[in-house]
Amino acid sequence: MTTKKDLQEVAQRVQKYIHKTPILSSESINEILGLHVYFKCENFQKMGAFKMRGATNAILSLTNNERANGVVTHSSGNFAQAVALAAKKTNTKAIIVMPTSAPIIKKTAVLGYGATVIDCLPTQKDREKTAERIRLEQGSTFLHPSNQIEVIEGNATAGIELIDQVDQLNAIFTPVGGGGLIAGTALAAHHFGDAIKVYGGEPSGADDAYRSLKAGYIIPVENPKTIADGLRTSLGDVNFPIILELVEEIFLVEEDEIIAAMRLVWERMKIIIEPSSAVPLAALIKNKDRFKNRHIGIIVSGGNVDLDNLPF
Amino acid sequence: MTTKKDLQEVAQRVQKYIHKTPILSSESINEILGLHVYFKCENFQKMGAFKMRGATNAILSLTNNERANGVVTHSSGNFAQAVALAAKKTNTKAIIVMPTSAPIIKKTAVLGYGATVIDCLPTQKDREKTAERIRLEQGSTFLHPSNQIEVIEGNATAGIELIDQVDQLNAIFTPVGGGGLIAGTALAAHHFGDAIKVYGGEPSGADDAYRSLKAGYIIPVENPKTIADGLRTSLGDVNFPIILELVEEIFLVEEDEIIAAMRLVWERMKIIIEPSSAVPLAALIKNKDRFKNRHIGIIVSGGNVDLDNLPF
Repeated sequence: MTTKKDLQEVAQRVQKYIHKTPILSSESINEILGLHVYFKCENFQKMGAFKMRGATNAILSLTNNERANGVVTHSSGNFAQAVALAAKKTNTKAIIVMPTSAPIIKKTAVLGYGATVIDCLPTQKDREKTAERIRLEQGSTFLHPSNQIEVIEGNATAGIELIDQVDQLNAIFTPVGGGGLIAGTALAAHHFGDAIKVYGGEPSGADDAYRSLKAGYIIPVENPKTIADGLRTSLGDVNFPIILELVEEIFLVEEDEIIAAMRLVWERMKIIIEPSSAVPLAALIKNKDRFKNRHIGIIVSGGNVDLDNLPF
Repeated sequence: MTTKKDLQEVAQRVQKYIHKTPILSSESINEILGLHVYFKCENFQKMGAFKMRGATNAILSLTNNERANGVVTHSSGNFAQAVALAAKKTNTKAIIVMPTSAPIIKKTAVLGYGATVIDCLPTQKDREKTAERIRLEQGSTFLHPSNQIEVIEGNATAGIELIDQVDQLNAIFTPVGGGGLIAGTALAAHHFGDAIKVYGGEPSGADDAYRSLKAGYIIPVENPKTIADGLRTSLGDVNFPIILELVEEIFLVEEDEIIAAMRLVWERMKIIIEPSSAVPLAALIKNKDRFKNRHIGIIVSGGNVDLDNLPF
């Protein structure tokens, strides 16, 4: 298991490559909810999402030899940009396999960071097959967006900062997709928090983590249906044991609740958060009576939204 | 003319009613422009705009007798909300005359703050007539959104904070509508800045300030046409002399430049700014070579946008 010292070293290692993002609060949202919410603004992170943390740590954890052969990943979203930018900042070659269905804005951003983009069909199978082919051809290292300990530990630095920035935090809410953020946050709370509990918000239409936690084993998501495009993936064997041990509970939310929470933040806080980031807030709103007067941190996972395709 | 001591007293007076808003910067925007931009985020101000500052100072400047009779204003936008909220915070009765064309979201907000909303026709004449009638009937004090020294001095506190928050500022850009923000900012720079120049950005479709400054006398705008709904008003006799004396230059920008600048901020900075706030950035982008490597503050006037009517 990751130790406190491990995390301190990670935080030290990634520090100069990432932003220490600010905490924002909203009087009106606090009033509506009857509790104190502290938004950890990873939407202001480099490339617009917390994924920069995990990707950076994963690349910095490579040996010189490994780094010379570059990295490869498959992602339709933020991890693609994160690996591309982290690779650029560390002078590492990056190849990103992206499904043909990925938003053009994300492909453009990846190309802008100097990475190579290779298209694949929009299926998990073709993504994996294509990435594996490239890994073998190039001898590059495969980076997993959520199920790799270096990525999880990198993600933990958001929680470490949040705990340092806010006094008397009672709990932290994060979105749950592939499990890399909530596992990292749980590690951060475990080692740096004073009895801080970690909760997940998950869309009903992609409720694999909720069901897996109940069952005690991984039940992969099938045909996920949610606007929260970052949360359509399943937990993995590296992050699941951490989640099982350290996460208090996962709350399910409906699509209309996600959109309402997203709009609430846009309108009241004047910050742009992506649908996935609205999921933990939606979960908190749904369970607000249980957390009355408590001090709750929410990790705003990212702000990469296609402005031409808003849900409102 | 307003003294430095006057402004210090104003800053002291309004302090506990307003937010000291943060400064945000964007590496990518700085790279694109080849200079350093510091965004003074009045979109994070209470009720979402700098107008809270002027409205608060104007109400706090009333005598007890005056305040007992309440205040009245006419506004289709942010000043309506600002007066309503400032009145609520200071236990003052407020009546807001709003044209039937005002966005419902703004009327709802005003009502939410406990003010009385009285409708008028969407003409300058009917707005003024209706407000004047109420002033006479109620004995209340009329507050002007931009052409009143207490409002201008209240607005100045945004510039005072900005100058305090950023070292070595060379210039400040603000939008120019009724003239209340740029006049206040010019007073702040004059009294608190070390040779900080103040520039205005104004839409070509509402270029009264540009033309008035050239002419040396006020030329009111006729049929203003711009997406920057906060900037469709004309300068007044209180703010014009200040602008004439202390503002360096006003730059005109086109509608597509405003929308592009707005979108740039939304996409790169993940903050919501209203079209009026994009105008000074559009002006800076257009003149970026002239300000190469300089440190420029931009007052992001507000973030109250109708999410159902975005220009992109």
